[in-house]
Amino acid sequence: MEAKLTLVGAGPGNGDLITLRGINALKNADVVLYDELANAALLDFAPAHALKMYVGKKAGNASFSQQEINGLIVRLARKRGHVVRLKGGDSFVFGRGHEEMEYARDYDIKVEVVPGVSSCIAVPASVEIPVTRRGVSESFWVITGTTQNGELSEDLKLAAQSKATVVVLMGMNKLTEICSLYKRFGRGHLPVAIIQNGTRPDQKSVIGQVWEMPRLALEHHIGTPAIIILGEVVALHPEYTTEYLHAMQHVGC
Amino acid sequence: MEAKLTLVGAGPGNGDLITLRGINALKNADVVLYDELANAALLDFAPAHALKMYVGKKAGNASFSQQEINGLIVRLARKRGHVVRLKGGDSFVFGRGHEEMEYARDYDIKVEVVPGVSSCIAVPASVEIPVTRRGVSESFWVITGTTQNGELSEDLKLAAQSKATVVVLMGMNKLTEICSLYKRFGRGHLPVAIIQNGTRPDQKSVIGQVWEMPRLALEHHIGTPAIIILGEVVALHPEYTTEYLHAMQHVGC
Ligand SMILES: C[S@@+](CC[C@H](N)C(=O)[O-])C[C@H]1O[C@@H](n2cnc3c(N)ncnc32)[C@H](O)[C@@H]1O
Ligand SMILES: C[S@@+](CC[C@H](N)C(=O)[O-])C[C@H]1O[C@@H](n2cnc3c(N)ncnc32)[C@H](O)[C@@H]1O
Repeated sequence: MEAKLTLVGAGPGNGDLITLRGINALKNADVVLYDELANAALLDFAPAHALKMYVGKKAGNASFSQQEINGLIVRLARKRGHVVRLKGGDSFVFGRGHEEMEYARDYDIKVEVVPGVSSCIAVPASVEIPVTRRGVSESFWVITGTTQNGELSEDLKLAAQSKATVVVLMGMNKLTEICSLYKRFGRGHLPVAIIQNGTRPDQKSVIGQVWEMPRLALEHHIGTPAIIILGEVVALHPEYTTEYLHAMQHVGC
Repeated sequence: MEAKLTLVGAGPGNGDLITLRGINALKNADVVLYDELANAALLDFAPAHALKMYVGKKAGNASFSQQEINGLIVRLARKRGHVVRLKGGDSFVFGRGHEEMEYARDYDIKVEVVPGVSSCIAVPASVEIPVTRRGVSESFWVITGTTQNGELSEDLKLAAQSKATVVVLMGMNKLTEICSLYKRFGRGHLPVAIIQNGTRPDQKSVIGQVWEMPRLALEHHIGTPAIIILGEVVALHPEYTTEYLHAMQHVGC
C-alpha cells in the first residue's frame, strides 16, 4: 500500500464538468475528502470500500480547520492509501490546494494534482459571458473579495482602474464596498453580473450596472456562493443589451 | 435533423483533461471542427460517421480565416446537424468562442457552451505553481501578449505594477519587451516561469527571474505554445527555491 494524495478539481458545480483524469482518480480512491463546493454526486465514482468524508463548511462554519484537514490527509493516506481531495473548481484557485500539497510532501506522501474547470471562467460562461472578447477585453483579473485581514484587496483598487474584466470570488459580503470603489473611479455605469450557484440546477443571476447592483442583488435574493463579474464583456449578454438599449431610448440617448 | 453548435473546451493538452460533458458532446457529433491546441486523440470519441476537420494553424499560418470558420460552422450545421467546435483549453479564454457563438445564433443555430480546463491555470499547475496562494497572492491576471494592434497590452503595463500573479498567453514573441517593462518598474528580480506544451508529453519549462529570462528561454530552446507566469507564487516552486537560496548564500545574502 502506497500513501498518496491526489488533489482533484471537481469543476464548478454540475456533476459532468469534472475531467476524465479526475474520474479515474476517484475510481482508485481509498478515501475521498470533499468540500461543500464539490458536487457530492461525484462520490459515486469512488469504489464502495472508500471512506467518504465531508470536510467542508456547515452552515457557514468550518467543520474542520485547515490544520485538521492537513492532519487528516496525512493520517488517512498512511492508514488507508490513496486519498483523493475533491475540491470545487480548480484546487489552485483560492482552494488551499497548494498548502495541502506542501504539507503532505513534508510527510513524504506522494502528491498528484489534477486540474479542474474553475468557476472563475465557467460560471460567467454559464450565462454566456466570456471573460475575454476580441476588441472588448484583452485580459481578465480574478480576485478574492475576502482577504486575510478582512479589508478589501489592494488589487481590487487597481483593478477598478484597469480595463481588465474583473472576476471577484467570495465577494458577496463586500458587494456594496466594491460597487462604491468603482463609483469612486467614475465607473458607476460599468456593466456587472452576479451569478449564484453557477452550472447548478438552482443557478440564479442578475445583470445591471455598478451603481444599482447592491439593490438589484438584494431584490433578486442573490446569496452565496456567487461570482461577481465587472467589465464591458458583461454588455455582450443579450439581456443587458435589451434592457439598457430600451432604457436609453426612453431617456433619449 | 437539428442544426446545432456545441463549443467544447478540450483542456490544456493532455487527452484526459477534457470534461465528461465534453466527451458526451463529441459522442453525439456529426461534425468536429478542431484547432491545433485541441488534442487530436479526442477525435476518437466522435462517431465513425462524423466529419473531422482541422481548421487550426499550419506552421504558423491560419489555414482558415475566422470568417471562413464561422461560415463553415453554419453551413455544416445546416447540412449535417450537430457541429462540435473543439478548442484548446476553454473556448471563452482568448478562443474566439463567443464570436462563433454569436455568428451561429444570428443564423438561428442553437448553441451550447461546454467549459474546459484552461491552460492559464492548468499549465502553471502542471509544474505545481498555483496562481493564488494564501499570504502570497490574492489575485491572478490573465493577459494576452498579442494584441490586435501588435503593441504590448496597456493592461500589462498596469499589471507590472500590481501584486497580482500575471499569466501571459501568446506572449513569447514579446518576451523581451515584457521583461523590460517589469525591469522599468524595478521588478527585475521577480520570479518568472515559462512552460511550453504544458500537460503534454513534450512539456518543457524554465524558471528564474525577470532580468535573466529572455536569455534563459533562449538557452532552454523554449518555443510556442507557452505560458509566461510572473509573480511571487513562482518562488514556491522547489527548483526556484533551491537555485536561488543556493545563489544567495554564495553572495552572502
Ligand atoms: C474558496 S473559492 C474556491 C474556488 C474554486 N477553487 C474554483 O476554482 O472555482 C469559493 C468561491 O468560488 C466561487 N464559486 C465557486 N463555485 C461557484 C458556483 N458554482 N457558482 C458561483 N460561484 C462559485 C464563489 O465566489 C465562492 O465563494
Ligand atoms: C489562442 S490562446 C487559447 C487559450 C485557450 N483557449 C485556453 O483556455 O487555454 C493560445 C495560447 O494559450 C497558451 N497555451 C494553450 N495551451 C497551452 C499549453 N498546453 N502549454 C502552454 N501554453 C498553452 C499559449 O500561450 C498559446 O499561445
